Amino acid sequence: MKPSIPQGTRDFSPSEVRKRQYILQTIRTIFERYGYQPLETPSMENLTTLMGKYGEEGDRLIFKILNNGLHEKKDADKKNLNEEWQKLLEKPYSTPVVTERALRYDLTIPFARYVVMHQHELAFPFRRYQMQPVWRADRPQKGRYREFWQCDCDVVGSTSLINEAELLCIYQSAFHHLAVPQVTVKINSRKLLAGMAAIAGHESQMMDITIAIDKLDKIGWEGVTKELHNRGIDAEGITKIQNIISLSGTNDGILEQLAQLMQEHQCTIGLQGVEELKQTLQYYETLKSSDWSGTIAVDASLARGLNYYTGIIVEVTTAAVKMGSIGGGGRYDDLTGLFGLKGLSGVGISFGVDRIYDVIEELGLFPEALESGCKAMVVNFGGENETYALQVVQQLRNAGIATELYPDAVKFDKQMKYAHKRNIPFVLLLGDEERAQQLISIKDFRTGTQQKLPLAEVIQHLSNE
Amino acid sequence: MKPSIPQGTRDFSPSEVRKRQYILQTIRTIFERYGYQPLETPSMENLTTLMGKYGEEGDRLIFKILNNGLHEKKDADKKNLNEEWQKLLEKPYSTPVVTERALRYDLTIPFARYVVMHQHELAFPFRRYQMQPVWRADRPQKGRYREFWQCDCDVVGSTSLINEAELLCIYQSAFHHLAVPQVTVKINSRKLLAGMAAIAGHESQMMDITIAIDKLDKIGWEGVTKELHNRGIDAEGITKIQNIISLSGTNDGILEQLAQLMQEHQCTIGLQGVEELKQTLQYYETLKSSDWSGTIAVDASLARGLNYYTGIIVEVTTAAVKMGSIGGGGRYDDLTGLFGLKGLSGVGISFGVDRIYDVIEELGLFPEALESGCKAMVVNFGGENETYALQVVQQLRNAGIATELYPDAVKFDKQMKYAHKRNIPFVLLLGDEERAQQLISIKDFRTGTQQKLPLAEVIQHLSNE
Repeated sequence: MKPSIPQGTRDFSPSEVRKRQYILQTIRTIFERYGYQPLETPSMENLTTLMGKYGEEGDRLIFKILNNGLHEKKDADKKNLNEEWQKLLEKPYSTPVVTERALRYDLTIPFARYVVMHQHELAFPFRRYQMQPVWRADRPQKGRYREFWQCDCDVVGSTSLINEAELLCIYQSAFHHLAVPQVTVKINSRKLLAGMAAIAGHESQMMDITIAIDKLDKIGWEGVTKELHNRGIDAEGITKIQNIISLSGTNDGILEQLAQLMQEHQCTIGLQGVEELKQTLQYYETLKSSDWSGTIAVDASLARGLNYYTGIIVEVTTAAVKMGSIGGGGRYDDLTGLFGLKGLSGVGISFGVDRIYDVIEELGLFPEALESGCKAMVVNFGGENETYALQVVQQLRNAGIATELYPDAVKFDKQMKYAHKRNIPFVLLLGDEERAQQLISIKDFRTGTQQKLPLAEVIQHLSNE
Repeated sequence: MKPSIPQGTRDFSPSEVRKRQYILQTIRTIFERYGYQPLETPSMENLTTLMGKYGEEGDRLIFKILNNGLHEKKDADKKNLNEEWQKLLEKPYSTPVVTERALRYDLTIPFARYVVMHQHELAFPFRRYQMQPVWRADRPQKGRYREFWQCDCDVVGSTSLINEAELLCIYQSAFHHLAVPQVTVKINSRKLLAGMAAIAGHESQMMDITIAIDKLDKIGWEGVTKELHNRGIDAEGITKIQNIISLSGTNDGILEQLAQLMQEHQCTIGLQGVEELKQTLQYYETLKSSDWSGTIAVDASLARGLNYYTGIIVEVTTAAVKMGSIGGGGRYDDLTGLFGLKGLSGVGISFGVDRIYDVIEELGLFPEALESGCKAMVVNFGGENETYALQVVQQLRNAGIATELYPDAVKFDKQMKYAHKRNIPFVLLLGDEERAQQLISIKDFRTGTQQKLPLAEVIQHLSNE
């Protein structure tokens, strides 16, 4: 039997784990610095918590867990189980007896569920971040996995646009520290999209228009026109939409044109959208660091597919690598309403960890030290030299230097081959001569150079590396 | 609808996440220092990888995932699905069509599966650590969850007892850094248990004897006697077993008595067990730090339930809190043999993260800073003071100090109440006066004191805290 893992899942090798940890740790530090707090929710949620929250397609893609103890059911129950099974075959998402639990599909719904359950203990505004895997029974393909990580931060219980501006700063700071080049954070407002729908004469079809425009990158303007037409938008409306979403210029310039347009049509919601974007960008200007190479760009064509957004929306891309968006988010006015807590506005952003990994890997921007966690290997010459080696290796560790002693006194070549395969940069040799002199021969694998030093200097040398 | 989470699962609040991260990060740093490398395997494994590895009870407790796309099956398949369903009702662990995937039950089997799959790329000895959740459909009770974390480190491909000694050092170092008091690492060898079975005249029943003795802490000697009797051990044999497992004294003393006994009975495997324990402790003496308050204690009654151990076994307890073992492990000679790779010896230990958490929490030993991640909150007085506040808050963050600005210029009391509920130790006040003087009023919530300082001094004050 040849072992394997399920389609669409991955083992992460040591260097992959270290690189992923590097990304997550960089982002975590920034979240903490902005007062966001870590939350972890269970991998399993009650099926009723998840069903109906992600559309019919989403319901189908949720991984459901088989109830345990089926074999223990009494015969009377078996009839019931058989009935449930028949329902499952017809309609796999309404089967409370066969399956009552499911794997988390995203981090947003569990967050809303948590806030509602703990509303009386929490201090609002409640800022949380969450970095955990989610599972989707999607058809696996390049870059799409059935288990993947999400990394979200959200604040609920405040309508202040300072939150939006701080989230822009978090993006800025994270991509700056991760050294991802040519980053653009596109920004728009659902209120402008609503205004646009009104101007196009299809006020009630804001979501139809949004869903069509969201595909612009994938299917181009021709495809969007067709989709708008299919969704019942007339030719005149389509032209107006095109005029708006193709506005270009500086951020101020675009906002000026949008303000004029909304003014002409006396569109209150659209004007509100412009005002909110202006205010957000102004807060951002006060907060931002000057050393970031990326751009914040108002983009009237930015739509975002999710239907719970109601205010500012953002999406992050990099021009350095051919890749979809590497982050996104927005404001939602009633997420917790799904679980009975009305009127709690929130705003959040998400980092696409897997794609960010791919970008950094493709550009070769991961720090070299992540390749091998271990800095030095001590060769094992056996006997009394082994005892000397044990003492030395322990002192290196006590000084904070990750060090291995090869555990068996096997052939020198075999030990060197191991160190090489492990990508360990330094090898320490403690033979009879070194032991007699109380010195250590240190070989730098990358340069091939070798020198004999006392322990204190070896520690200093390795610490500085 | 009142939202809830599945029985036996937990939400981890911000302070709980931080405390758990503190434990995991402390252990991770030590693992890395000893050259152990991180590995992460998927939450889901193929059902065939897991089934039959944990005994019949284990098979039942594995959480199985329902195959998706059931509704898409053709009618011809439905008959098949119905047949599989009938099998499932009778025998829930042999149903490849209804369920082909399952949630990880421990970290050991996925590790063995990974090593076999990647045997040609890995450098042996391969040291890996893994910290991930596992799932078991056990009946939930106090301290027993259906989703819980395991934290393992193992090395495979070396029979050197230096590995055992280094793992003892890892335990020592971890519990020292976590400040868990009164720790004892009990140590024994399966080879001594085999020798004991031989001396008792029941050489082939080593596992029966081991399973019975493993319950000593729970059911006492009387219970163990009964169980040994039920498993067919005669009275004379039981007496001999009792004599051996109740040996006491210093480590050297116990080992001396054991050596003598094994010598008398010319028991080769038992003598080998004694020798290995002696050698391991000798290596440990060379490696150990002198500043640890815990004890390594040879204990001839230590058995460990798992049947794959073949050499040295260990178990960790603390006398400071009433609690079961907080760690354990041992050497196994043929774990990867399950997946077709024979003869790869390994040794590993595990940390019981949930119990260690409970111990540290009960003793009040978590660092205070973990309670609130955020060090300071800036009060929002609105208008131009808000702009000044935005500039200050950003400079604090740039200096590495986790700081929040209250996002809305609401009533002072409401803002202070928030800071208090969030356990934020410092509040910064930036009103008209402070802005005019370019100073900051800093209030220490714990002492109630307040002073007015320039930004640089505030940064220094908060950094030193």
